[in-house]
Amino acid sequence: MEDAVRKALMYDFYGPLLTARQQDIYEMYYGQDMSLGEIAEQLEISRQAVWDNLKRSAVILDEYEQKLGLIARHMAQQALLTQVESCLSELKRLIETQGAADLVHVIREIEQLLHRIRFDA
Amino acid sequence: MEDAVRKALMYDFYGPLLTARQQDIYEMYYGQDMSLGEIAEQLEISRQAVWDNLKRSAVILDEYEQKLGLIARHMAQQALLTQVESCLSELKRLIETQGAADLVHVIREIEQLLHRIRFDA
Repeated sequence: MEDAVRKALMYDFYGPLLTARQQDIYEMYYGQDMSLGEIAEQLEISRQAVWDNLKRSAVILDEYEQKLGLIARHMAQQALLTQVESCLSELKRLIETQGAADLVHVIREIEQLLHRIRFDA
Repeated sequence: MEDAVRKALMYDFYGPLLTARQQDIYEMYYGQDMSLGEIAEQLEISRQAVWDNLKRSAVILDEYEQKLGLIARHMAQQALLTQVESCLSELKRLIETQGAADLVHVIREIEQLLHRIRFDA
């Protein structure tokens, strides 16, 4: 996973566990793409203080992911959903080209995937 | 949702954020169904200390749910999956009783549900 995508996901899942100040700085830097200098100027603190705050937030978010694993879980779920969608495409193709009798095994596969989403993902 | 089910879900999602001690006591009480007295005796602490520990853990778990909302999200996702499964049952029924041409709108409905699981749930 790209680092920027991972950072955005981490913030989506665990952002509310940061302090309001940490959230503000994180959003300015990663969300609004402001530079360290711009953030420092706006908040009237040093560039170093902005940098330290961002590093600290990254450590906190990583610690939560290590404990709760929501991103790992999310990625596994997305992969399963991709498979479901692929089954549905196949199902549509079969419907268009043949009769209905051959479709049952595809439906069974979808059911098994949904079961995994529900209980494993 | 039943309180016992909710307590189990809370622990499934946020348990790793409790201390090892809090996890032990929570599991003894809710998982192994031990009494306050039994836990107190085993850990050589007072019943009151066991009770205080359990109350504190419940507050911590609630605070995390208020911030991250994983259980609310989980319940929404389960509801969507139930709808997907209902669509698949309908699809099977249609396949058994009719030709394939009428199935396309059901498949479209499944696709929309999957989209919601992926992006809203």
